[in-house]
Amino acid sequence: MVRIAFDAMGGDFGYQEMVKGAVMASDKDIEIILVGDENLLKNEIAKYNNIKHLSIVHAGQVIGMDEEPATAYKEKRDASITVATRLVKEGMADVVISSGSTGAQMTAGIFILGRIKNIKRPAIATYYPTSNGVKILLDSGATPDCDKENLHQFSLMASIFGISFLKMDNPSVGLLNIGTEDKKGSVLYKETFKLLKDDGKLNFYGNIEGRDVPKGIVDIVVCDGFVGNIVLKLMEGLSSVLLNEIKKNINSKFIYKIGALLSKGAFKDIKSKLDYTEYGGAPLLGLKGISMISHGSSDAKTMMNAIYAAKRAVESKFNEELIKYFEGV
Amino acid sequence: MVRIAFDAMGGDFGYQEMVKGAVMASDKDIEIILVGDENLLKNEIAKYNNIKHLSIVHAGQVIGMDEEPATAYKEKRDASITVATRLVKEGMADVVISSGSTGAQMTAGIFILGRIKNIKRPAIATYYPTSNGVKILLDSGATPDCDKENLHQFSLMASIFGISFLKMDNPSVGLLNIGTEDKKGSVLYKETFKLLKDDGKLNFYGNIEGRDVPKGIVDIVVCDGFVGNIVLKLMEGLSSVLLNEIKKNINSKFIYKIGALLSKGAFKDIKSKLDYTEYGGAPLLGLKGISMISHGSSDAKTMMNAIYAAKRAVESKFNEELIKYFEGV
Repeated sequence: MVRIAFDAMGGDFGYQEMVKGAVMASDKDIEIILVGDENLLKNEIAKYNNIKHLSIVHAGQVIGMDEEPATAYKEKRDASITVATRLVKEGMADVVISSGSTGAQMTAGIFILGRIKNIKRPAIATYYPTSNGVKILLDSGATPDCDKENLHQFSLMASIFGISFLKMDNPSVGLLNIGTEDKKGSVLYKETFKLLKDDGKLNFYGNIEGRDVPKGIVDIVVCDGFVGNIVLKLMEGLSSVLLNEIKKNINSKFIYKIGALLSKGAFKDIKSKLDYTEYGGAPLLGLKGISMISHGSSDAKTMMNAIYAAKRAVESKFNEELIKYFEGV
Repeated sequence: MVRIAFDAMGGDFGYQEMVKGAVMASDKDIEIILVGDENLLKNEIAKYNNIKHLSIVHAGQVIGMDEEPATAYKEKRDASITVATRLVKEGMADVVISSGSTGAQMTAGIFILGRIKNIKRPAIATYYPTSNGVKILLDSGATPDCDKENLHQFSLMASIFGISFLKMDNPSVGLLNIGTEDKKGSVLYKETFKLLKDDGKLNFYGNIEGRDVPKGIVDIVVCDGFVGNIVLKLMEGLSSVLLNEIKKNINSKFIYKIGALLSKGAFKDIKSKLDYTEYGGAPLLGLKGISMISHGSSDAKTMMNAIYAAKRAVESKFNEELIKYFEGV
């Protein structure tokens, strides 16, 4: 049975929503350890019936979204994300999930779980929907300042993750750049291009542009954590702006409303197909244990999906593959 | 009368489309000088009646999209973008427009027109539609490798451009970053934040995130040319992917089609309101003359809009304001 250390104190909606998500996901195949204030969590759980495989481990502190991660990690030894990550380190859980501060989760991951040997920097691998299936983008914010070796390692890690977890077949890797020609880009991206092109182990597609990301022309989009974070938040923001504008326009005339009522199903589909927030969790690649990051604005349903994704992540054994590859290099 | 040097050989659709756009825009207030192969252009113009204020200046060469800009500029002295830019330098035209190679246009701009004194690097200022009105993003590709002084100068240039050209009132400047907190970001963006915050002349809003770009929460989005180029192409790509997915879904069921027919007007509106390609031209800020960049895939109507935008750019005297500000510093 997969054992999940679940930071119940993270997220914008409070522990109540987190507990709800955990209750929704808990079944005979998943054991969930809620980490956080024991009293609060106990009282919350008491509201539900028929709870399966749910336990609580107490953590007396919480790291807020605005706190400087490294400082907060040092000062709050009993923070929920720290305690939850420690459960993985100690073999009490197979994976940790949080929708709290990404920086704090990363800091806990690096200090407690440790980096895989030879990995210089970790990366957050986000998978996202495109009109051509689910694709991976990394780094989406773990390492804002990258060098070419980082980007090279990200490409390799994502390839292994894509094969193990998303069952991709020989995943293609595209370098996100400002033009498709070989010599385009900033100094960093020009140098990275050469490195990726020369690595025979990668299925390197070449440079891709911003417009290619939502089209899904490659399986793996590689970029630094600064660019990746902006790209993902932009996709999320723009799709919501577009759908809102459509809604506003439709409400402006009666005849449009009638039309929209008839074609409603078509939009519902879109919303779930291209909802960039619906996807559950993004693994922090490069650590000696699995740490899955969820969106801060995750609701109970999203957390339920994140728990299912975490279960699949453990079962896919992607991290064993990563460790084998990099420690064997 | 505003005189426009129009690179008739640029763009993905060929000179025929460019000439069509020029013919559509030419009227009693605009003089257009078509720059390119004289014979081709003459024959093309002959297809139209009632042509006003349209002349031709011959240029025997064209710089292709795949050519390395600096090399091509040196080797092709008679390239259309070079000849067109020279017309501005020599006072024969007030502005140059091209939808050819951005790199070539920039190289010609820097070498022929020259940089405004004290400006270290130029920036492309793209204005784009949001649900909160038209906003500016820069740099969208002129300077992929920036330092903090570059980003600071971009902020100042865009503020002056926004006031003069878009009639913005005390435009707010947001630094595109990976979090809204003051200390977020890569080393470059952390340092730039301080510089912008300390400049009392700027109406500095603070850091913004990717999702804030399409929402239009600030008048001016500042970022390096690498990030900006990816952001703009992503907005273009994602809006087209979303609209295509909607179309596909609607076509999947008869009842959806009927509904869509009734609400068609609502979508037409959206398409023009949030069409990131429809906007005419983006000025290359920082040069001692006006050079407007059009999208490579511009059709005749877009070029017509670009010509109108170029006319307004000249009349707004934004570049005189820029020169006054920076040469007076």
